[in-house]
Amino acid sequence: MDERNLTMLCDFYELTMANGYFKTGQHEKMSYFDVFFRSMPDGGGFAIAAGLEQVAEYIKNLHFSENDIEFLRGKGIFGEDFLEYLKNFKFTGDIYAVPEGTPVFPHEPILTVKAPAAQAQLIETYILLAINHQSLIATKANRIVRAAQGRVVLEFGSRRAQGADGAVIGARAAYIGGCAGTACTLTDELYGVPASGTMAHSWVQMFDNEYEAFKAYCEIYPNNATLLVDTYSTLKSGVPNAIRAFKEVLLPKGITNFAIRLDSGDISYLSKKARKMLDDAGLESCKIVASNSLDENLIRDLVMQGAKIDSFGVGERLITSKSSPVFGGVYKLVAAENEDGEIIPKIKVSENPAKTTNPHFKKLYRYYDKESGKALADEMVVWDEEVTESDRVIFDPSATWKTKTLTNFTVRELQAPIFKNGECVYELPQLNEIRDYCAEQVETLWEEVKRFENPHTYYVDLSEKLWKIKNDLLKEAKK
Amino acid sequence: MDERNLTMLCDFYELTMANGYFKTGQHEKMSYFDVFFRSMPDGGGFAIAAGLEQVAEYIKNLHFSENDIEFLRGKGIFGEDFLEYLKNFKFTGDIYAVPEGTPVFPHEPILTVKAPAAQAQLIETYILLAINHQSLIATKANRIVRAAQGRVVLEFGSRRAQGADGAVIGARAAYIGGCAGTACTLTDELYGVPASGTMAHSWVQMFDNEYEAFKAYCEIYPNNATLLVDTYSTLKSGVPNAIRAFKEVLLPKGITNFAIRLDSGDISYLSKKARKMLDDAGLESCKIVASNSLDENLIRDLVMQGAKIDSFGVGERLITSKSSPVFGGVYKLVAAENEDGEIIPKIKVSENPAKTTNPHFKKLYRYYDKESGKALADEMVVWDEEVTESDRVIFDPSATWKTKTLTNFTVRELQAPIFKNGECVYELPQLNEIRDYCAEQVETLWEEVKRFENPHTYYVDLSEKLWKIKNDLLKEAKK
Repeated sequence: MDERNLTMLCDFYELTMANGYFKTGQHEKMSYFDVFFRSMPDGGGFAIAAGLEQVAEYIKNLHFSENDIEFLRGKGIFGEDFLEYLKNFKFTGDIYAVPEGTPVFPHEPILTVKAPAAQAQLIETYILLAINHQSLIATKANRIVRAAQGRVVLEFGSRRAQGADGAVIGARAAYIGGCAGTACTLTDELYGVPASGTMAHSWVQMFDNEYEAFKAYCEIYPNNATLLVDTYSTLKSGVPNAIRAFKEVLLPKGITNFAIRLDSGDISYLSKKARKMLDDAGLESCKIVASNSLDENLIRDLVMQGAKIDSFGVGERLITSKSSPVFGGVYKLVAAENEDGEIIPKIKVSENPAKTTNPHFKKLYRYYDKESGKALADEMVVWDEEVTESDRVIFDPSATWKTKTLTNFTVRELQAPIFKNGECVYELPQLNEIRDYCAEQVETLWEEVKRFENPHTYYVDLSEKLWKIKNDLLKEAKK
Repeated sequence: MDERNLTMLCDFYELTMANGYFKTGQHEKMSYFDVFFRSMPDGGGFAIAAGLEQVAEYIKNLHFSENDIEFLRGKGIFGEDFLEYLKNFKFTGDIYAVPEGTPVFPHEPILTVKAPAAQAQLIETYILLAINHQSLIATKANRIVRAAQGRVVLEFGSRRAQGADGAVIGARAAYIGGCAGTACTLTDELYGVPASGTMAHSWVQMFDNEYEAFKAYCEIYPNNATLLVDTYSTLKSGVPNAIRAFKEVLLPKGITNFAIRLDSGDISYLSKKARKMLDDAGLESCKIVASNSLDENLIRDLVMQGAKIDSFGVGERLITSKSSPVFGGVYKLVAAENEDGEIIPKIKVSENPAKTTNPHFKKLYRYYDKESGKALADEMVVWDEEVTESDRVIFDPSATWKTKTLTNFTVRELQAPIFKNGECVYELPQLNEIRDYCAEQVETLWEEVKRFENPHTYYVDLSEKLWKIKNDLLKEAKK
């Protein structure tokens, strides 16, 4: 077993700032931070939020060991009172977040922390890391699964993942996004994502010839035989040897749920040729699995070209989100309480308008059309605003003359309380519940928002009250 | 502390194959596997090997717990004799590898495993994961550090890393590649990579105004003051407030080693303006740190344009190797012993010639010019071949008429024994030794190989003996 204290997985500046808040008497100042992102991976129309379970586990286990504190003391810059404070460090604040599997959009709070300043600061790095990583992979997996149009997608990328968690937790996120399973055994053991796999080229090479290798495999795993047919030549030897092994070993036992796997060459062409060879041999039930540098773009093309592929194994391009490997979630101070306990909104201005934050402690709502069930818009409101199901006018925050009147809708608050006063109050859903919820929520999005390229921009608006507060703060900052 | 057994971080097919080797009486068959890669990240001229220390730790800790075995039993496809075998599973073979920090090239064995088939198979996934991940990041870091031409590069990417190991171990690899430090506290605690950091925007926002925030910081950390100057307006408020804080708090104490950090806007322009303002205020000693979406391309441009930047903080584009986020190392069977203990070379043919493997148990040599010290070529030879420092003719394996006679050279075997009969025989170097070795070895490469775009292809050749064995195997496979 390997051991590491994730509490120490923080940017060093979180510690210098927390110590500084301590020294300036601000460490107990109640502060509000939002996690949000600014742009969509792969230019898509929505992202899938994931990583909350790991955040919850991390918060529950927050602690600094004796060794950690000794290590920090060695830096020679932290006060003894601060180090003493770290000894008994625990989280006493509140966390609100959208459930894992929720489609989310730029600039809206995926997660909100309300906590004393020193605490809220120290947890920044890991919260971002967990949410950024898993939202990235869940979003990519969802794109790939949608491209496969009902065909099975399996996650095969452990060996190319960026570190052990990249593999193990990445496969968890891929499952949330819609993959049917993974090759990673540890992800099955820890999270119950079904692991599967049969053979590599080395299995075939270990035997005197390909047929012997296939025959042995069918004998050992009669109910789980997916034969890799490209070690020597897919069409000249792999497929014929597979057909022979299926016919000689499995058909006599009445077993027909076998498959072949294509892993090189032009898999569209090879799948059509192999399909014909299998069908001509009476093996219509034999499935064809394809792997090799797949992603949503290639899968979309293969499906369009009528490739005869029943299931896709997707490796490096999923587990690293290769075409867009960063989810840019940030953690920004949006409010802090003054001595009287009033919540004072804060803003971060930027020379780049898209980098200016939405201030204040907020709530996030999603409006659904009552008839179609489709999501119409999201709205951020100030924490003490009421939202009801009567008609509501929303407007584009960057072009306020663009208004839209919502009628006949239902409304749902997107963030749920996860921690209250340091206690976890959220019942973490089972992983397959998260996966089902994700699929169901993606169904509520219009096709135009789900388009892979240049999708419709979903509405994410500010309430009039929030918009005014933001504008006042911007004017003040300008002075 | 979080716990996970990395032994279970294996593709499920490693287990089905190992169980199959067991069932077919092949699990003790001595097998030889090479780890190599086929193409260079970012189209560079060389990669930096890294990850060996994590491989060694993993091999030492290999074991299946009772729970792991119970989990596998639940799959209903593994034999009881195999599960019994896993109970006492340990590695008894040999591992050879190039030391961490070595520049490496496509198709040459970075790591070679000689072990009984079941063992060699079960360790495939994690070995690849460890080598692929860290070689990717060390290679990217080396590109970025070379682009900075002597300026300090710090790794700042934890929050955007792909999982906790992506951050922690990624920062280790970045240090090997030449970064001077990291923001990740845990990487400092575990691996001794110097962690640093000062403040985020939240620090500035937590105070009534920017000046108060800077003043407080300088008072608390007089010897470690890097002030982030872009919370409101870099040139109108950030730099003037920083100058005031430095002058009022630090100069009177005789302290002059402070800095400002630019994190948004056009950092070339802002750095020149800020430099002038600092110099005009008599603060020539003040350093300028820049961060914000940096990589080797932008840094090269900034340096060329004369940006006044002393050190670069590089985040997501380093820790994910954003422009090229996959290191494609593979693990291929190259030989297996027959009943008489003879080593029989094995080849994997492919319709794509670049995917055909170099067979056999091999040794890897690097030739250096005696006068310049520069690396001339690498050569793979059969395990029992002798290489001496007398003149040697090498030739391009894909164009055999292209020969080159080496004279006046020194030769070095690149792979070192890491494990012998299951025992670690390699003294793992200190991380700063690895970093120094890497810098020194990169120095042995010609500038033409180090070019960022379209570099000269370094020679990686096969000995005549090895080339003949490969050709014979190809002819045989063709039949």
